[in-house]
Amino acid sequence: MSDHPTGVEKYEARARNANSLVCVGLDTSLERVPERFKAMEYPQFEFNKWIVEETHAHVAAYKPNIAFYEARGEAGYKELKLTLDHLRERHPDIFLICDAKRGEIGSTMAAYAESLFDHFGFDAVTVNPYLGGEPLAPFLERKDKISIILARTSNPGAGEFQDLVAGGKPLWQIVAEHVKTWNKNGNCMIVAGATYPEEMRSLRELMGGMTFLVPGVGAQGGPVRDAVTAGLNSQKLGLIINSSRGIIWSEDPGTETRKLQTEINSYR
Amino acid sequence: MSDHPTGVEKYEARARNANSLVCVGLDTSLERVPERFKAMEYPQFEFNKWIVEETHAHVAAYKPNIAFYEARGEAGYKELKLTLDHLRERHPDIFLICDAKRGEIGSTMAAYAESLFDHFGFDAVTVNPYLGGEPLAPFLERKDKISIILARTSNPGAGEFQDLVAGGKPLWQIVAEHVKTWNKNGNCMIVAGATYPEEMRSLRELMGGMTFLVPGVGAQGGPVRDAVTAGLNSQKLGLIINSSRGIIWSEDPGTETRKLQTEINSYR
Repeated sequence: MSDHPTGVEKYEARARNANSLVCVGLDTSLERVPERFKAMEYPQFEFNKWIVEETHAHVAAYKPNIAFYEARGEAGYKELKLTLDHLRERHPDIFLICDAKRGEIGSTMAAYAESLFDHFGFDAVTVNPYLGGEPLAPFLERKDKISIILARTSNPGAGEFQDLVAGGKPLWQIVAEHVKTWNKNGNCMIVAGATYPEEMRSLRELMGGMTFLVPGVGAQGGPVRDAVTAGLNSQKLGLIINSSRGIIWSEDPGTETRKLQTEINSYR
Repeated sequence: MSDHPTGVEKYEARARNANSLVCVGLDTSLERVPERFKAMEYPQFEFNKWIVEETHAHVAAYKPNIAFYEARGEAGYKELKLTLDHLRERHPDIFLICDAKRGEIGSTMAAYAESLFDHFGFDAVTVNPYLGGEPLAPFLERKDKISIILARTSNPGAGEFQDLVAGGKPLWQIVAEHVKTWNKNGNCMIVAGATYPEEMRSLRELMGGMTFLVPGVGAQGGPVRDAVTAGLNSQKLGLIINSSRGIIWSEDPGTETRKLQTEINSYR
């Protein structure tokens, strides 16, 4: 048994120690990787290693979106595994999120838990609520691992179904209320997009101190100030604020990460 | 350019020629693969090859659930690719569905389209509607490829959110109505679980001749007769009826597949 913290405590310890709520999204599409990495045997991994080198002092979490590795099939999978192995060895205190948005029947969710928590070693995985809470059991029973349930996503068309009103409440709110009942092991978080700060404020009132994963700042245009002021919990924590493309494809990822860290902290 | 049919036409041509609406789900979890395959270099692929050998005469489609390959990381990905290459070479007329239930923002869905349609060569992929139709654009614009949108899933807890009533209609129906508007290229299908035959009947009335992917027979216990009588379209087609565990882990997969084919056809 390791005596390192797991779950929410791992995130909060790192956020405090690094004085940062920043998550860098490792959405490393091979096409956009600079030429100097493309010539290497493992271009996605080498690029990620460089991004980690440049940014790690300013982050609480990293979040690879698995789609950009799957796009290359087995080769991309190997590079994702190399990235995770590197992060866990060199930076064991940084919180590692797999953005996968999985939503499956129970027997299949068990296979996903094995893959993402055990094979890759992620601390947390994003999951989709459309199939309900019943099939999430293989995730929710993992007391040391975090399930991050989509409530309000950051994309422009998020409201098409999430804003439907049933029994006087929008679907995103109903989902969040159900997540409170799924949280018996204290291992749930929700997604609340920075592009919808009003919904973020409502969710903070509803969810107590629960931590939110906040996509949508940076390239997606969500306002940092509104997200932070609406979303912080009483500990001045409770947010994992992710920027992917706005950092990793910038000229100077380290500086961009530090700027986001400083901007967020200026509103805390 | 190939002159083979694609999309719905590919499915219908195969269903007619094989006189079958059966889909076999290649949910090949390594743990359950018989010992004689486990000693081989590519146990999932070799097992799949054997299942295909035993069952192909009786099927219109195969549907690997990608979770069971991802569970092994890059090794499983390779075996899935080997399986797809084998199927496309030896049985180019069989319809190939990836059960992945993806639901992402648009830039990420583009990566999934590349992975699943181009790298693996699937004809169709299951997708989750929670983020709305806007991010599905990279799928919907692929005129030769099918997006199969979850409407009513087969799991016991499917109704937790799918049965919520907004504006007098349950969410599963609202999703299906939106899919009709997304279907400009005639390349959408929906998921309608066999475990909910009443919803299947409503969906058939609503959706015209659209083809439904029907999980939930076999190990999940859905009644074949009710699903077929409720779900057939006017061409006595319009259903892709999947059994996974009930076939692939049986003593005699070929016989089980033929029995399901015969049972379905007895109600057509």
